[in-house]
Amino acid sequence: MNPDLWPVHALVDGLYASGVRRAVISPGSRNTPLVFALIEHGGIEPVSHMDERSAGFFALGMARQSGEPVAVVCTSGTAVANLYPAVVEAYFSRVPLVVLTADRPAELREVGANQTIRQPNLFGAHVKWACETPVPQDRTDLALNLRGLALRAGLIARTVPEGPVHLNVPFREPLLPPRRSETRELEEVPAIHGQPSPPAPCAPSSLAQVEEALARARRPLVVAGPMRPGSLAQAVAHFATAAGIPLLADILSQCRDSDASVPYYDLVLRAGAAPEPPDLVLRFGGEVTSKLLSSWLRGARAEFVVFDETPLYRDSGHLATHVVVGDPTAWLHDVSPALGDWREYRAAWREATGAAARALDASLPWFEGEAVRTAVEALNPAHVLVLGNSRPIRDADALALPQPGVEVYANRGASGIDGVTSTALGIAVASGRPTLLVIGDVSFYHDLNGLAAARELSSPFVAVLVHNAGGGIFRHLAQAERPDEIDWFTTPHELDFAPIVRAYGGVHVCAGDAGALRSALREAMARPGLTVVEVRFPNDESPRMYRELFARLASERGVGAR
Amino acid sequence: MNPDLWPVHALVDGLYASGVRRAVISPGSRNTPLVFALIEHGGIEPVSHMDERSAGFFALGMARQSGEPVAVVCTSGTAVANLYPAVVEAYFSRVPLVVLTADRPAELREVGANQTIRQPNLFGAHVKWACETPVPQDRTDLALNLRGLALRAGLIARTVPEGPVHLNVPFREPLLPPRRSETRELEEVPAIHGQPSPPAPCAPSSLAQVEEALARARRPLVVAGPMRPGSLAQAVAHFATAAGIPLLADILSQCRDSDASVPYYDLVLRAGAAPEPPDLVLRFGGEVTSKLLSSWLRGARAEFVVFDETPLYRDSGHLATHVVVGDPTAWLHDVSPALGDWREYRAAWREATGAAARALDASLPWFEGEAVRTAVEALNPAHVLVLGNSRPIRDADALALPQPGVEVYANRGASGIDGVTSTALGIAVASGRPTLLVIGDVSFYHDLNGLAAARELSSPFVAVLVHNAGGGIFRHLAQAERPDEIDWFTTPHELDFAPIVRAYGGVHVCAGDAGALRSALREAMARPGLTVVEVRFPNDESPRMYRELFARLASERGVGAR
Repeated sequence: MNPDLWPVHALVDGLYASGVRRAVISPGSRNTPLVFALIEHGGIEPVSHMDERSAGFFALGMARQSGEPVAVVCTSGTAVANLYPAVVEAYFSRVPLVVLTADRPAELREVGANQTIRQPNLFGAHVKWACETPVPQDRTDLALNLRGLALRAGLIARTVPEGPVHLNVPFREPLLPPRRSETRELEEVPAIHGQPSPPAPCAPSSLAQVEEALARARRPLVVAGPMRPGSLAQAVAHFATAAGIPLLADILSQCRDSDASVPYYDLVLRAGAAPEPPDLVLRFGGEVTSKLLSSWLRGARAEFVVFDETPLYRDSGHLATHVVVGDPTAWLHDVSPALGDWREYRAAWREATGAAARALDASLPWFEGEAVRTAVEALNPAHVLVLGNSRPIRDADALALPQPGVEVYANRGASGIDGVTSTALGIAVASGRPTLLVIGDVSFYHDLNGLAAARELSSPFVAVLVHNAGGGIFRHLAQAERPDEIDWFTTPHELDFAPIVRAYGGVHVCAGDAGALRSALREAMARPGLTVVEVRFPNDESPRMYRELFARLASERGVGAR
Repeated sequence: MNPDLWPVHALVDGLYASGVRRAVISPGSRNTPLVFALIEHGGIEPVSHMDERSAGFFALGMARQSGEPVAVVCTSGTAVANLYPAVVEAYFSRVPLVVLTADRPAELREVGANQTIRQPNLFGAHVKWACETPVPQDRTDLALNLRGLALRAGLIARTVPEGPVHLNVPFREPLLPPRRSETRELEEVPAIHGQPSPPAPCAPSSLAQVEEALARARRPLVVAGPMRPGSLAQAVAHFATAAGIPLLADILSQCRDSDASVPYYDLVLRAGAAPEPPDLVLRFGGEVTSKLLSSWLRGARAEFVVFDETPLYRDSGHLATHVVVGDPTAWLHDVSPALGDWREYRAAWREATGAAARALDASLPWFEGEAVRTAVEALNPAHVLVLGNSRPIRDADALALPQPGVEVYANRGASGIDGVTSTALGIAVASGRPTLLVIGDVSFYHDLNGLAAARELSSPFVAVLVHNAGGGIFRHLAQAERPDEIDWFTTPHELDFAPIVRAYGGVHVCAGDAGALRSALREAMARPGLTVVEVRFPNDESPRMYRELFARLASERGVGAR
């Protein structure tokens, strides 16, 4: 007689019921039952990746772009520990990941068995929830138990704040599960369903306080930090425009293209050309990329409203005076546009940033920052942009204005340089749209293994590799004061990426100026598959070019309006 | 006035006092003080590695070969999580690592600050000890505190069972520390010194029980599992030889070359040609590589003595009847050789394994196993051997007899396929001797980034890359019963490693038969730097070749003596 639905098949049913539609699988022996159950399910698209570290970030990218929970599956042992960097990033950037790790059963732990480590709770404080299932056996109660645990896992991952969860599943030999077609479905047991609750709106009393603060304000600012593309970012842009409040929009805010947005605030602040500081700040999303903006706001000593979907609000400057927890989208659309008249303050910002815009347009020389700006501004709304950490995101934040509608992503939960290529490939695969990654050479090196996922691409994927032969960011930091020892930080290397890119089936080209970069991008963004466009610069050049730019801006300070 | 010795310089003094002589540094901003203090110390050799995952394994390799504690230093954020795989391996294989992670200070945690995660105790149950230091400030008490914590860290790592420890060091800006030459040494405070205690000898009463068991035994076996090269392995070989007890010596036991060793036991067991099972087993070192030997011993229901330096004895088959904790080296040398007369049993083993040896010598065909055997047996005692997990170690364990004196290493704590190349490079750098790594293609792919450390090589390093285009081990497992889905496990890939090896400055050659392999190795093992010798095989060939070999052995069963 056929067994009842095997618990691992039931577990996959629970994943599906929770909204999981994609799974990234790293093969192994102990996770054999999970792999077979996933590939036999039919409703979940499996993707294979040999390196668990890259696999984790690839799943993170898919979940980040799609907003859907993505499963990551690996075998027992150090494989699990390889997922940790992506789990950490998912936790702090609130991306729903369901981590499924196969384990040895309890009787093989602590006795020296092969590939047996201490997996339960391995991810510590970096998952929202962790659970060990029973060992699957042919028992209906266990099938129902595993199905329900998987549904919980997916629902917890999807509940605000979204994040990673961990199911550790111990298996006994034999590891080959019965085929789903050879088991009896749980016919007398109805299918399981579940949905996370939508995020709750902010408390009306909290919003009333914000409205009172606005009524008092003479120089209000809206600051939009990193947000995912969607209704909140749109509502923030709508609100700032309708209320006439200047909007300082981070490169990751998805609303830098708003009518209210005043670009180049980082340059304006560096040039000492900023208007008077605000007396009220409304901040949405995470912390902004610009350290200068953060420190300038710290100096303003303004009333400071931080909106966050959770009580774990981001405020490393300890600036918040009002913390508004929940979803403010409806309020942002409904609140009266006649809150006050801040035309003068808006005009001051427009004037200051207009000067910066003119300085940029008047022949920015070819250097790392200009390469990043050129790449970002070459995109159209059908494209997706992913920014590497360290220098690329800072260059883009300071210098670039993406076209309206371009989705912009980066790993800013923990801001690591690891896993960036895999994240970008996950974003590309999930979006199905031409995707541009701008990345430095150390970060690109760190996740070369991630290029193995390029075979999953059906659309164009282009990495602009800003190659300065090491960690150029340290030329901007205090290390630059000790030139004799700076190589310990910049780690100069002689890696030639071209043959490596080609080994992964990619096209590698170089571009030597803005025109060549634009033309390489035009071609590459229309060609399915992986292209790397390498732009090379001296390691120590960027700080000098920025200093020249700031000097130019300072000398033009206050000249004319935009 | 110059400040007193800065606490971070004092910390490095403590590391040095504990025996640390090497540090692997992955650069970052937050760990700037640690990096400067290490490179200024003078007594600790720093090495740079851009990928923390590989850096961790590189340090593990150096510590594994040298027996000295090695420091690994990284910055805050996901960098720390990248060290986790190596930390897990170090924990279970008892290798002394001192993990130093820079962190943000407490006031920047849980408030959304950049690159700030939850680092204290991040390695959970996979370190022997974890501690967070105070934030370094110019105070003598803090300098003394950090110096003492670092000494503790190194001493704990070195105390049996050796293993990894974790010091989390929070830093406030500014991050550039005073130069050591600009600080006043702690002149009124004497330097600090410390030594771990040597491992304690086994309890005499426990050893007396073993001697009684030996007096009762008619068919005793000594089983030598993985051990580091050194006095215990030598003592085990001496004891088995002096007592006349057959020695089944794992490929990692460092005593397969003993006079008492009966090789090819795995083949003999598979061919059903083994002598009568033992009535007493003395096992030294960790669990053996051969699963077949383990299960055969399980069936023997013998008295089973497990020697282990700690109460965490390895015994996944639950076989132990006597657990002897401590260092048995002195006893092994002193115990009377006239314990009993087991010549008949030894002769039976010699006869059985002699048949296997003849079968192997009579033209083993060219397949993965023969390539591994050829590579291993090509080494001389001046060489070091590192075996990759999955198939290479199993092939070597079943088929190869290294020349006497060849040190043999592998990552068998958690037996991951990750970090193997970096571990081998660390072993090569620490030993300063020509080193051979035998590794499969999935494992080689997993740690391609590790090749960046090849620039540290001053001696020859050769990787024999057994390339079967995917996870050939799954052809030996139950997955082989489902050929339509096996690609989800073998993960066939089309990666051409030659250009990647060359990008890292290595030489890449191919070998198509045993003669070509031998000749390539002769050349490469004499040329400083990285060489990869690739040998290619069909993914599904190995199980068939083994089946043929077993059949041949079974048919020759019992014919003649060696």
